[in-house]
Amino acid sequence: MSRTVYVNGEYLPEEEAKVSVFDRGFLFADGVYEVTSVLGGKLVDYPGHAKRLERSLSELEMASPATPEEILAIHRELVERNGIDEGLIYLQITRGAADRDFFFPEGATPSIVLFTQAKTGLADNPKARTGIRVIAVEDLRWGRRDIKTVQLLYPSLAKMAAKKAGVDDAWLMEDGLITEGTANNAYIVKDGTIVTRQLSNDILHGITRAAVLRYAREAQMQVEERSFTLDEAKDADEAFITGASVFVLPVVEIDGATVADGAPGPTAKRLREIYLEESLKAAM
Amino acid sequence: MSRTVYVNGEYLPEEEAKVSVFDRGFLFADGVYEVTSVLGGKLVDYPGHAKRLERSLSELEMASPATPEEILAIHRELVERNGIDEGLIYLQITRGAADRDFFFPEGATPSIVLFTQAKTGLADNPKARTGIRVIAVEDLRWGRRDIKTVQLLYPSLAKMAAKKAGVDDAWLMEDGLITEGTANNAYIVKDGTIVTRQLSNDILHGITRAAVLRYAREAQMQVEERSFTLDEAKDADEAFITGASVFVLPVVEIDGATVADGAPGPTAKRLREIYLEESLKAAM
Repeated sequence: MSRTVYVNGEYLPEEEAKVSVFDRGFLFADGVYEVTSVLGGKLVDYPGHAKRLERSLSELEMASPATPEEILAIHRELVERNGIDEGLIYLQITRGAADRDFFFPEGATPSIVLFTQAKTGLADNPKARTGIRVIAVEDLRWGRRDIKTVQLLYPSLAKMAAKKAGVDDAWLMEDGLITEGTANNAYIVKDGTIVTRQLSNDILHGITRAAVLRYAREAQMQVEERSFTLDEAKDADEAFITGASVFVLPVVEIDGATVADGAPGPTAKRLREIYLEESLKAAM
Repeated sequence: MSRTVYVNGEYLPEEEAKVSVFDRGFLFADGVYEVTSVLGGKLVDYPGHAKRLERSLSELEMASPATPEEILAIHRELVERNGIDEGLIYLQITRGAADRDFFFPEGATPSIVLFTQAKTGLADNPKARTGIRVIAVEDLRWGRRDIKTVQLLYPSLAKMAAKKAGVDDAWLMEDGLITEGTANNAYIVKDGTIVTRQLSNDILHGITRAAVLRYAREAQMQVEERSFTLDEAKDADEAFITGASVFVLPVVEIDGATVADGAPGPTAKRLREIYLEESLKAAM
């Protein structure tokens, strides 16, 4: 059965879900997005995603074509129409369609698109038991990674580099320091302290990151928000990633080096449990 | 009258020219493009654009959905159908539509879109007589600017910053050195020598740049391909830009500093004349 997709006010079969070739999302990557997980038919960490969407729009001086209430209602309607128990909802807003010009168009109506992806193995992810393997690649993305834009070609290329290397994902590195994963935040644990890069324009301000760090501090774990090197990561006691669709996943190999004994560590395991428990409680 | 636009094998009225919301050009900026000028109904510097398109596709391991001969034929058909005497033809190829995944899809058909823009004042550009004014802004683009991708949000933001500053365009600057303009290459002239940044992954390999440097050398002008600073630019005898739709345009103000006496210089003027003459001769 074809999915139902939301495009600019209409619920359409996915085959008919189209945008103008003049849409600035297509011509200029002039668009922002969010991905929200669905567990048990409910939206995980939704207020965080809604808030970050507002910030992305604001940083780009882009108007929203719908109110926050309308956007939430579309999420819920798509979950319902597509019968999503476990999966993802993708949302994209662009500056809209106008004849091609680097200058922002006057009076264009922003475009809004939402679609669902049914997934199994989000909550019960086999990779949570085995951990994932990552390579390190240079971080060649633009300088405003704090804005969640659709300029995702480099993360896509890095994922393909990981695939060619026979591993699961890539960590991005700038001046010898890890910035983050291709579509997730990166962490190491050393001597009982969780280390993850501080917020800045260099990394995405992960919604799952914020929640996980809050839970870690509430559980009396030590957290240091600072940059770390690839060598530190290889020498860590544990490593893991967080993201809206992976929640918390252990990393057991970094750029060819086995992390500790190569088994998922207790910190990642515990944080995944807490995150799933708490976020399910708060899911809406 | 509505333009005729080419989309994946069909010639369509622009209102019907659409792509799937699952197109990776829309979701990941996973697409490349070219813009070719039309003068007197003929394509300017077309072989250069066709060759660069092949290179962009190859760098991204993206297949072309049409042969070079077919792509040229579509250009000509659109010129004819839209009665373009003077204007631009925009071409975009993306990795095609597939359910959203950072990994490249297996078996997706690349998308191809072409449209025209009728323009006056390309050959007889009033800015060629007055020159343009630019500001300098940090170059925050990704690290592979040699690939002509649709990740154009930052150039668009830089153009808007120029507009807000009341000037025409922006020059991008990295580590104090000018890389290029928002959608053009940047040059200064000092003591009779034309200076423009050397080719690398840091700048677009401009088709007009290559032609203009060739003409300059044939005319016995001195050319140095090297990086230059903003201060050097402000202190230059002349400055100009080149690009497929501007050809050669003098720059008379850089980041608030008047270049020499503030009038277009003889080198830019001469190179514009040569470029227009030679490229019209070779137009096809």
